[in-house]
Amino acid sequence: MVRRAKVFREKQGIDLRTGHRVESIDPAGKTGRGVTLEGKAFEFSYDKLLIATGSRANIPDLPGFDLPGVFTVKSLEDCRKIKDLMARSPVKKAVIVGMGYIALEMCEALRERGLDVAMVKPRPVFIPWMSPDLASVVKQAVESKGVKVHAGHEIKGIERAEGGLKVLCSDMALQADMVFAAVGVSPCSEVAAEAGLALGPGDSIAVDRSLLTSDPDIYAAGDCADAYHVVTGKRTWIPLALRANRSGWAVADNVTGGRAELPGVAGTAVFRVFDMEVARTGLSVEEAVKEGFQPVEVAIKSRTRAHAHPGAKDIWAQIVGDKRTGKLLGAQMVGKEGAAHRINAAAVALHAGMTVEAFSQSDLSYAPPFGPTWDPLLTAANQVLKRMEVP
Amino acid sequence: MVRRAKVFREKQGIDLRTGHRVESIDPAGKTGRGVTLEGKAFEFSYDKLLIATGSRANIPDLPGFDLPGVFTVKSLEDCRKIKDLMARSPVKKAVIVGMGYIALEMCEALRERGLDVAMVKPRPVFIPWMSPDLASVVKQAVESKGVKVHAGHEIKGIERAEGGLKVLCSDMALQADMVFAAVGVSPCSEVAAEAGLALGPGDSIAVDRSLLTSDPDIYAAGDCADAYHVVTGKRTWIPLALRANRSGWAVADNVTGGRAELPGVAGTAVFRVFDMEVARTGLSVEEAVKEGFQPVEVAIKSRTRAHAHPGAKDIWAQIVGDKRTGKLLGAQMVGKEGAAHRINAAAVALHAGMTVEAFSQSDLSYAPPFGPTWDPLLTAANQVLKRMEVP
Repeated sequence: MVRRAKVFREKQGIDLRTGHRVESIDPAGKTGRGVTLEGKAFEFSYDKLLIATGSRANIPDLPGFDLPGVFTVKSLEDCRKIKDLMARSPVKKAVIVGMGYIALEMCEALRERGLDVAMVKPRPVFIPWMSPDLASVVKQAVESKGVKVHAGHEIKGIERAEGGLKVLCSDMALQADMVFAAVGVSPCSEVAAEAGLALGPGDSIAVDRSLLTSDPDIYAAGDCADAYHVVTGKRTWIPLALRANRSGWAVADNVTGGRAELPGVAGTAVFRVFDMEVARTGLSVEEAVKEGFQPVEVAIKSRTRAHAHPGAKDIWAQIVGDKRTGKLLGAQMVGKEGAAHRINAAAVALHAGMTVEAFSQSDLSYAPPFGPTWDPLLTAANQVLKRMEVP
Repeated sequence: MVRRAKVFREKQGIDLRTGHRVESIDPAGKTGRGVTLEGKAFEFSYDKLLIATGSRANIPDLPGFDLPGVFTVKSLEDCRKIKDLMARSPVKKAVIVGMGYIALEMCEALRERGLDVAMVKPRPVFIPWMSPDLASVVKQAVESKGVKVHAGHEIKGIERAEGGLKVLCSDMALQADMVFAAVGVSPCSEVAAEAGLALGPGDSIAVDRSLLTSDPDIYAAGDCADAYHVVTGKRTWIPLALRANRSGWAVADNVTGGRAELPGVAGTAVFRVFDMEVARTGLSVEEAVKEGFQPVEVAIKSRTRAHAHPGAKDIWAQIVGDKRTGKLLGAQMVGKEGAAHRINAAAVALHAGMTVEAFSQSDLSYAPPFGPTWDPLLTAANQVLKRMEVP
């Protein structure tokens, strides 16, 4: 986040040009053009081009989301603005529009600073991709910290009110000193699209396993690019840090004569909200249905440590499998310890294309301070097996 | 540990006979005989037989290991005796013979009760199966808690001395009020061997993937039985709880007409010693050499949380791969948080027969509270790849 341009220029010999906005690319002529922050036009040419334009925070197309005191949480600059406002004026109430990872992480951060926090979104389900049992555990954890969760309220806009702001819904209004729009991100792919490059899901830039776009001399990597999903084999757009970082390395290899190919993503994601670890990998039941699978799922409640071990806490695990083929499709976990790392066992199983049965036979670690004899994921897998129809 | 015989007999209709020691089995006649605790002979016959005789703690065949105040740590009864002695007399010094899982877990338990603890063993290396960098981290953690570690001292025996005991080594002697023999376990396979059943490694009872012994009507499960190793495909004897538990279920299925087959074990094992989590799966470098692989290993030091995240601690990860085939052979981790569950990602990769390269491409979880962008196992895997000679 804080590496200086100077390091790139002087220590690494990279012609780094900050404040240069590329506005168009000409793949036929292998050139591009743009404008600097000072309004000066510039051109460049390339042998190989990498598009790493990232993503931007979505802002609802509704009145008032441009008012002062309304923020997104994407860049360091966003966060500086938030801190500035909090330093300048007494901020007591925050409303977060959205209930995804960023929304939940923000609600913790704001509660820790003593603010009243309300979350609101139009869809009625708290975490729609999550197994209902697990989602309700997370919701209770959030509400137990005094956060008001308002799911299923259509948002009409934001207006100024009584020295602050008011988030207007179809059936209610929420007072706020600050409002956060945390409703996802979109890939910055406009320049690529205008240059005629093929797009993938969500208008991300379509790339193959070597991160090459539809043009043989243009790569794309990071949040702006898509990936193959290892469960479906199809294109997906799940912009997360490890994939972005890994893609950067792969492009560097490929531009310099190497042949790096990335199999793709399993959609593994984790976040912490208060004292809860929330983790997922692979497909949810809803996603599995859309992909033509016949998902069966089981969610179980287990313990984070052995039966009689002090400090044991509740942990929930869900496994999704395909009824006909027996294939493992996904897993989710929620708990106060160990969920974030445990999920990786299922992620690797997805990469390996394992069946639920093969996964259920994995020799996972056991010692009393770290879990029951059967890891919660194995217990869930054993239960899913009973619902399979594999011959 | 505390389920009563009554439950088996009355609630589950099982003819459970405690205090009955089986002394011989006749596989041809499908009968067995033995003696009760009261010295009364008994006989039985069977259609299917399960041998689940477990293992016993090894006791060094040296003078004085039968003295009062010398203990093994295997059964609940052992632990009652230890607690009784501590309640009866002032115990200040303990010597532990051995430095394996049980020895290390005991040294923590005894230090927490305020005892002076010394550990001693003949072999010079602290944890011989462990990557030297990682073993030295564990050793320092143990020594920092005031435990004296004496590796490389041949033990001659134990004798009474000054109101206590003295552990005699070839080059020194250690005073003690209590001595613990924690030098591994052996399978209780004598009855099986005498009945002519085939034995596996370490004189464990050889079983196939359905837990059947060399006799078509006799199964064996638990610490007394061997298993296939998923990395080598060969028989191994790694008596741990999950395998024992899983084998019990599989035998129950098979005896009642099912067809459960267990692929085997990856040798995944974890323990905690003080605030350190120690984890392994698969083969060590030494074991890999013995199995005919050309192992390359890299051990790296990383952090348990993201760069700037509060509470981040050091964590070490080692990956072992086969130079010629690229195959992942094993992994080890040591750290104050997350090692015990992280290791499971590598364990599943071993079950799937993944190469180091395939494993290095896994989409593992990332969020700042839980790790750096690249899980330490992935960082180690990336380093091992550079030392491969895969075409």
